[in-house]
Amino acid sequence: MSLRYHNPVAIRFGAGSAAELPEVLAGRRAVVVIFPEAEALGLVERLRASLGSALAAVEDRIEPNPDVANLAAMYERFWRDHADVEAVVAVGGGSAIDTAKALMVGTASGRFDELIALLSRGGTFAPHRVKALIAVPTTAGTGSEVTPWATIWDRAAGRKHSLHLPQTWPEAAIVDPDLMLTLPDSVTVQSALDALSHSLESIWNVNANPISDTYAVAAAREVMATLPDLLARPGDRALRARMALAALKAGMAFSNTKTALAHSISYEMTLRFGLPHGIACSFTLPMVLERAAGADPARDAILAQVFDGDLAGAPRRLREFLRRVGVKTEFADYGVDEAESRRMVASALDGVRGKNFVGARA
Amino acid sequence: MSLRYHNPVAIRFGAGSAAELPEVLAGRRAVVVIFPEAEALGLVERLRASLGSALAAVEDRIEPNPDVANLAAMYERFWRDHADVEAVVAVGGGSAIDTAKALMVGTASGRFDELIALLSRGGTFAPHRVKALIAVPTTAGTGSEVTPWATIWDRAAGRKHSLHLPQTWPEAAIVDPDLMLTLPDSVTVQSALDALSHSLESIWNVNANPISDTYAVAAAREVMATLPDLLARPGDRALRARMALAALKAGMAFSNTKTALAHSISYEMTLRFGLPHGIACSFTLPMVLERAAGADPARDAILAQVFDGDLAGAPRRLREFLRRVGVKTEFADYGVDEAESRRMVASALDGVRGKNFVGARA
Repeated sequence: MSLRYHNPVAIRFGAGSAAELPEVLAGRRAVVVIFPEAEALGLVERLRASLGSALAAVEDRIEPNPDVANLAAMYERFWRDHADVEAVVAVGGGSAIDTAKALMVGTASGRFDELIALLSRGGTFAPHRVKALIAVPTTAGTGSEVTPWATIWDRAAGRKHSLHLPQTWPEAAIVDPDLMLTLPDSVTVQSALDALSHSLESIWNVNANPISDTYAVAAAREVMATLPDLLARPGDRALRARMALAALKAGMAFSNTKTALAHSISYEMTLRFGLPHGIACSFTLPMVLERAAGADPARDAILAQVFDGDLAGAPRRLREFLRRVGVKTEFADYGVDEAESRRMVASALDGVRGKNFVGARA
Repeated sequence: MSLRYHNPVAIRFGAGSAAELPEVLAGRRAVVVIFPEAEALGLVERLRASLGSALAAVEDRIEPNPDVANLAAMYERFWRDHADVEAVVAVGGGSAIDTAKALMVGTASGRFDELIALLSRGGTFAPHRVKALIAVPTTAGTGSEVTPWATIWDRAAGRKHSLHLPQTWPEAAIVDPDLMLTLPDSVTVQSALDALSHSLESIWNVNANPISDTYAVAAAREVMATLPDLLARPGDRALRARMALAALKAGMAFSNTKTALAHSISYEMTLRFGLPHGIACSFTLPMVLERAAGADPARDAILAQVFDGDLAGAPRRLREFLRRVGVKTEFADYGVDEAESRRMVASALDGVRGKNFVGARA
């Protein structure tokens, strides 16, 4: 079978580019889906001023790691009150963009449980009606602005669903690094490490291809080169722009490969221990890199490009990098003992994303 | 204004991927637009066997650098005889793919002069009807499989038209390096140098952006690293694959920047001296690089990445590379004297593509 790459998202990038939102909407009305703190930050007011009558409503009751419990009511309200609105503008991190992806595809009944029932059965969901999505990330990490996927959690059932439809590609992504200037350090680190994980996971991936590799190598190198400086100077606009670009490229990479073992492990760490996604999917990267190396010479060659040609020294370098930005790299650091971690990795290798891992074939 | 990147083409890549053409057509009927030698090479027979009743017709009367004189009759025949066919499959180099782009957009009258009259006036052409385009390049260089542009020549009038519509993006590109195994050395060199020119021209370009740069740096490095080996072992499948990928990445780069000074110069060299496009757009690259260096520190930094950090030594290295693959690098080598070459460069700087050149701002 051929290697395949396709990413139809129209990207706009640059300081101040968020001001181009009305031009991208081009006369269409939109519901803005945004994180709750945006009102206090003055961001909602800016959007009101900029969009005027094109702004149909603001939905800011989103939560981190969106859960079916919260999404159902929001979804039904959205399709009842705004059936005639053409677009959804998602402003925020992965949770805001993923929430918007869940909202944008309408079931015939207008009920969310119709959608979740289909996802649970692994069935094909053909949306009855669809709104256009414009994604405006305010963190540098999620990549959700250039992928068609959303993760929907079901904490009550202890599981997660992956929404993935041809209709859930954003029409456009507007990446404005100035929106990231006020991010707290913890979010800067978590989102940057999510991006690093996206890029490395797209390389040690059975779905890797030369286009995703090109993006991934650039992204991984740029995250590692930029994050320590950015933590030292979080208000530096040029560094914010570099990190926003690195995260965007990581998104372009894994948009065509999906993730692999480190993300597969992360879901249990987040569900059981509440570990933030960016830490949960990155603290294992050195360990996963050790397992990836040697599994496939072609993958080794691309991984080596990330680490200046030195693949043997790469796990040590990655551990040092993570510790330097304050992230502990062993299961024991998170209260998971040796036996439990072995079980967790084995279970993760067996998961949908785990099966993407090149080391799983070895 | 923001930096922008958008490339909606669905890419399939790999040895043997041409066999996936029926899957890409997915039940649609197609006219195949192909180079005249394809019949003798057995390629038309392979397509007949593979497509069966999905193959509506074969158009192989294409010519290098497609000219309005030849296109008009073909266009009118095409829309008269195949109005009901859903797709065009272009198999060949840039000329075949560019011809297909001219054919795929239908005027209300079905006449080609309606289209050319609009292009001449710089007017907006809104196609009355459009067919889907699937591009299958058989050379590694044109990039036309991932761009929305076609160059249409009018030798009688001594000019060229650029067709560029939202509708002329290929829906899909199928890049099968095995189709390139029998290319003569001259075509291998010309197309590889066209790709090198696309990548460098997208860097020293006022429309450059971080995504196009990522593709361009990878492409330029890979063309230079691969071409000498490929000329030594033209039947090596792995080397053909590397060159096909490099050309594809160069296409992804310049699909969002267009070309610049070297291409602007090339048009006169091709119109007046009949110099093949790949040579005409690359023999000036060292000279253009000398003019580009120093015009913009950000551009210099990206150009340096192509040449292992040594921008000062880059023009010499590029000259040596071109000479090594048999290409002379000075105007005098082509019978153009000093005064004439100065006039030609000044005129090219003033052309549409010349204005994309960063050095033109200096």
